[in-house]
Amino acid sequence: MADLVEALLGGSLRALARLLTVIQNETPEARAALARLYPHSGRAYRVGITGAPGTGKSTLVNSLAKTYREAGRTVGILAVDPTSPFTGGAVLGDRLRMRDLAGDQGVFIRSMATRGSLGGLARATDDAICALDAAGFEIILIETVGTGQSEVDIARAAHTTLVVEAPGLGDEVQAIKAGILEIADILVVNKADRPDAQNTVRALQTMLDLGPAYRSNPWHHQSLSGILAPPPESEAESEAWQVPIVQTVAVDNWGTDALAEAIEMHHAYLGRSGKFRVWERQRLAAELSARLESALLERFVARLDTERLLALLDDLEKRRIDPQSAVETLLKEGDRC
Amino acid sequence: MADLVEALLGGSLRALARLLTVIQNETPEARAALARLYPHSGRAYRVGITGAPGTGKSTLVNSLAKTYREAGRTVGILAVDPTSPFTGGAVLGDRLRMRDLAGDQGVFIRSMATRGSLGGLARATDDAICALDAAGFEIILIETVGTGQSEVDIARAAHTTLVVEAPGLGDEVQAIKAGILEIADILVVNKADRPDAQNTVRALQTMLDLGPAYRSNPWHHQSLSGILAPPPESEAESEAWQVPIVQTVAVDNWGTDALAEAIEMHHAYLGRSGKFRVWERQRLAAELSARLESALLERFVARLDTERLLALLDDLEKRRIDPQSAVETLLKEGDRC
Repeated sequence: MADLVEALLGGSLRALARLLTVIQNETPEARAALARLYPHSGRAYRVGITGAPGTGKSTLVNSLAKTYREAGRTVGILAVDPTSPFTGGAVLGDRLRMRDLAGDQGVFIRSMATRGSLGGLARATDDAICALDAAGFEIILIETVGTGQSEVDIARAAHTTLVVEAPGLGDEVQAIKAGILEIADILVVNKADRPDAQNTVRALQTMLDLGPAYRSNPWHHQSLSGILAPPPESEAESEAWQVPIVQTVAVDNWGTDALAEAIEMHHAYLGRSGKFRVWERQRLAAELSARLESALLERFVARLDTERLLALLDDLEKRRIDPQSAVETLLKEGDRC
Repeated sequence: MADLVEALLGGSLRALARLLTVIQNETPEARAALARLYPHSGRAYRVGITGAPGTGKSTLVNSLAKTYREAGRTVGILAVDPTSPFTGGAVLGDRLRMRDLAGDQGVFIRSMATRGSLGGLARATDDAICALDAAGFEIILIETVGTGQSEVDIARAAHTTLVVEAPGLGDEVQAIKAGILEIADILVVNKADRPDAQNTVRALQTMLDLGPAYRSNPWHHQSLSGILAPPPESEAESEAWQVPIVQTVAVDNWGTDALAEAIEMHHAYLGRSGKFRVWERQRLAAELSARLESALLERFVARLDTERLLALLDDLEKRRIDPQSAVETLLKEGDRC
């Protein structure tokens, strides 16, 4: 395992691929490897890409990767799929995409699917980013399928979050945008060659104009982050970021140069405004919080008496106790032993 | 508060509405109220409705509610929106929908959006279901927006889970189905009057025929459920449920009678096969597990020394320690004090 880590730090993509598999399996060896890799991480710039199904996210990620490669920058791609919690199989077509970028040592693609809880996926994603980062990839593109909690995790993991839209995806999508807009640093209207693309651009601009304050703190509910890190200063006190709308036709590699420029501008803004460091600390506090929660439950459960738990479950089933009171009972009993 | 609980148990919808607000705010009074309501719950049948944006889920839920009302059954609707974690505002148009069902005391609609973590939403949803159940609603329809983790939560909360599809939603949706199929007890092809509906039905049937074993245990990763409840016996040992594909045109109230019948058949199947009770215990174990996890973190964080935490965060930021080692350090220090 130590050899594998050294090989990865030396630039071996094969070692990286093998380590990512180890990491995804969350073995004890993975723990040691990650502890060794962590000091070498923190140099990559992380870009999250999210949006509803059918917007062409994957094509956009490919096109963006090509743009970065043409500029001589190395790119790691993590395609995170939280929609398949049971199979553990990655849905996104790695091999299909690899055809475009095949043989290029400056790009590396990996798919990840939920094996256990969403918390487990977020943790595995953090770990995989750490490995790609330590391997020296300059840009890490983190793509996620679907809407919902996965977007929030992306917003937490990325420095710059792209929300991808496409023309004509129906009314319900419009409604969803309201929530998604709040995590967008850059809005992308892909398939911009479609006749109704300008309607989508206008609708998004209207939502941006009317919308709630930009970029709420995505960590506000994390117990630890409230204690550890100061919330970012309000926009009024510093230069505000104006969310741009960038139009692309990813399938033709059109517009991705402008998109890469917009990402670079956001990067510069984060540094200039001091937000880069604030968000980094928030992210670390949130990561610490999530890992701590899992570890606490694991430890508590290991100490529990199974017979007692089964009896408590019977009480719950027969409605003799409610779930929250059952938790309090368990906590009290745990303290006594 | 006690008066409110009594009024709810007496059938007051106003009391129910007020209690749901209290519950969503997670106040200490809510705790007491829920403990009082819990013994009166456990009678409602829970139906989860999920699917990608644009499939017409909300219209289908309305139409299904009408079908149940015509059969004389009372219906509670929970529209759960996990896509808007920051505003806490419900996106789904309650008022719009209420027009159809307005003035009917046998139906009650409530929207819920993420206020804090997804775990918080799942907990608030469980609590709201408990209140609707105790208020005497016979059928509870739990609708969720978006794809991803929210579906899994629905699969956990519902007795019967409907996955709604619609014709022509693009290739990426097809890919997502692979994951979603595994939580479906019934597949609904809505907008079945569209020309390409039969293609969708055929594609789904093929996926069902080729797909992985039906209904993996959605709780397999929950620490407590593994200890507490036996996994459901394999399908081979008992009668297997054949996932039906039901076609609807919800906007015309077409096909929802057949859908209600399919739900009834699944209900009967669960009872006959003994799975109803097995799943109920699994669900309770998972709920207990999730609540325990939150409570443990809350308690641990309350005891922590903020200065120590800030120093640890500095170490993380400067890459002097990795997140998992930081957690282990905290756990060790917590044991000492």
